[in-house]
Amino acid sequence: MKLGRFEKQDKVFFGIVEGEDVVELQGSPFGEHRRSDTRHKLAELKTLVPCTPGNFYCAGLNYAAHIAWANKRTGGNRKLPEKADVGYRSPNALIATGEAIVIPADSPGPVQFEGELVAVIGKTARNLSEADALSCVLGYTLGNDLSERSWQKEDRTLWRAKNCDTFKPMGPCIVSGLDPMKQTVSVRVNGVTAAEYDTGKMLFSAQHFIAKITQYMTLHPGDVIWLGTDGATEPDLKHGDVVEICHSEIGVLRNPVVKQSE
Amino acid sequence: MKLGRFEKQDKVFFGIVEGEDVVELQGSPFGEHRRSDTRHKLAELKTLVPCTPGNFYCAGLNYAAHIAWANKRTGGNRKLPEKADVGYRSPNALIATGEAIVIPADSPGPVQFEGELVAVIGKTARNLSEADALSCVLGYTLGNDLSERSWQKEDRTLWRAKNCDTFKPMGPCIVSGLDPMKQTVSVRVNGVTAAEYDTGKMLFSAQHFIAKITQYMTLHPGDVIWLGTDGATEPDLKHGDVVEICHSEIGVLRNPVVKQSE
Repeated sequence: MKLGRFEKQDKVFFGIVEGEDVVELQGSPFGEHRRSDTRHKLAELKTLVPCTPGNFYCAGLNYAAHIAWANKRTGGNRKLPEKADVGYRSPNALIATGEAIVIPADSPGPVQFEGELVAVIGKTARNLSEADALSCVLGYTLGNDLSERSWQKEDRTLWRAKNCDTFKPMGPCIVSGLDPMKQTVSVRVNGVTAAEYDTGKMLFSAQHFIAKITQYMTLHPGDVIWLGTDGATEPDLKHGDVVEICHSEIGVLRNPVVKQSE
Repeated sequence: MKLGRFEKQDKVFFGIVEGEDVVELQGSPFGEHRRSDTRHKLAELKTLVPCTPGNFYCAGLNYAAHIAWANKRTGGNRKLPEKADVGYRSPNALIATGEAIVIPADSPGPVQFEGELVAVIGKTARNLSEADALSCVLGYTLGNDLSERSWQKEDRTLWRAKNCDTFKPMGPCIVSGLDPMKQTVSVRVNGVTAAEYDTGKMLFSAQHFIAKITQYMTLHPGDVIWLGTDGATEPDLKHGDVVEICHSEIGVLRNPVVKQSE
C-alpha cells in the first residue's frame, strides 16, 4: 500500500495512492482511520511531508563505501563504526517534494545530497528483538540528508550542517510491505544519475537499529529512522539544480536548489 | 505569569497557577487561548510536562566551571567552545515532575544530573537579532539533562547517554518575565543541596543562542532550548534517590530515581 499526506484547498488529509488517484482516509494511518468514498486526482493535490515525526532518528554512518569516499575527499581517517550508535535530525528542516532547498547565504559549501531509505514507525514499540523489529514499521519513504560539508567539518555539532530549514526533504509517499534490506535507492541531479546503491550493504540493518533503539527508547507512531547513504554524494549542489531521490515503488522526492542571496 | 499543563480525570489542559489554585485556559498558550472561569486546586491535579516540543535544542557546553570540572573528573582536556554550536535532545525522553527517572539495567554508570534553565518558545521566529531575541520566548522552565557518563564517553553520539526514556525531566511550570541571564538554579539530591549556579555565567547568552539558531532555523511555538549547566554534577545518582532542580519562581522539578532490574 502507498500512503501519502496531501493538501487541497487548505484541507490536509492522508490518502491511499492508487495509480493516478488518491482515496481519502478519515483519520490518520498513525492512529484510528478508515477508507472514505472520496477520491481525488493525485495531480490536483499538493503532496506534503508524509508525517511530522515526534522523534527524528538517523543512522549516520551506515555504509562502508560512503565512509571510504568521505575519507578520500576530506583526507580524513574515519573508521567503520563498531556499533549502531544513533544520531538525530530536527523536524524544523523537513520539506516536501517540490519545495525548494534553500542554501544559506553564508554557506561556504559544498552542499551535498545524501539519498536515504527512511523507516516510518506505525506502532508504539519498546524492547523489540531483531526478529520482531519490523513489526512496528508502517512503511518506508525517502529522505535527502542535505549536508553543508564546511560546517560539518568545523562545527562542534551537526546543527547547521544538517538541520538548516529546508535541509531535510522527505517523501513523497510511504510504501508498506518492502524489505528494507533489498531496495535500490538512486539520486539524480538535473536528470543525470549521480548515485545508486543497494540497501543490502548497510553496516547495521534496519532491524538492528530498531531493536537497539527500542532497548532504551520508546518508538512512537510517526517517528522516523533515516537509514544512511552509500557511496559518493557528488556533484556538489548549486543554485538552479534539481535533485531527486528515486525508488521504483516509493517514487521520486524532487527538490529544486536555491542559494539565498546575501 | 506562571503557566502549566495539567491532567484531571483524563482531561488535559493548560492553566495559570495562582497560589494554590490553577485557572483553566481554553486553548493553548502556544496558540489561541483565553482564561476560563474554571478553577482547580493545584494539589488535585497531575502536573504534566509543560509543553511537547517539536524541536528540542540544547546549548551543550555553556559554562566554564562545568567544563573544568568534567576535565578534572575524566582526565579530559576539552577546551571552552569558541562558538555557540547547538545540540539536540529527543522528546521521547521527556517526563514530568514526580515521574521516575529509570536507569537502564545495563548502564555501567555513573548517571548524573545536570540542572538547567530552559527557554520555551512562544512565537514563530526567524532572523532575530540578539536585541530582539527574547521576544519569541513565552517563558522559562527547568530541565534535568540526565547523563550516563560511560555511554557519553564511549558512544559515537549522545543517543543513550542523554536520551533514554525518562532521561529528560522538564517542568514543573513556565514562568514569563524572567531575565534568563540573572537567575539562580540549584540542585538537591535527597534534600541536600548538591549544586547551585548563576545563569549570568553562561559562555553564550540565551539571546545569542536564540539569534544564532534563528539565523538558520525557524523557531516554532513549543520548541525548547536547554541552556546548559554549570559546575560539578555530583553525587552520582542511585536507585532510591530523589533529585530536585530548583528555582525560586519556577518551582521544583522533583524526580525519584529507579534502577531497572536485570
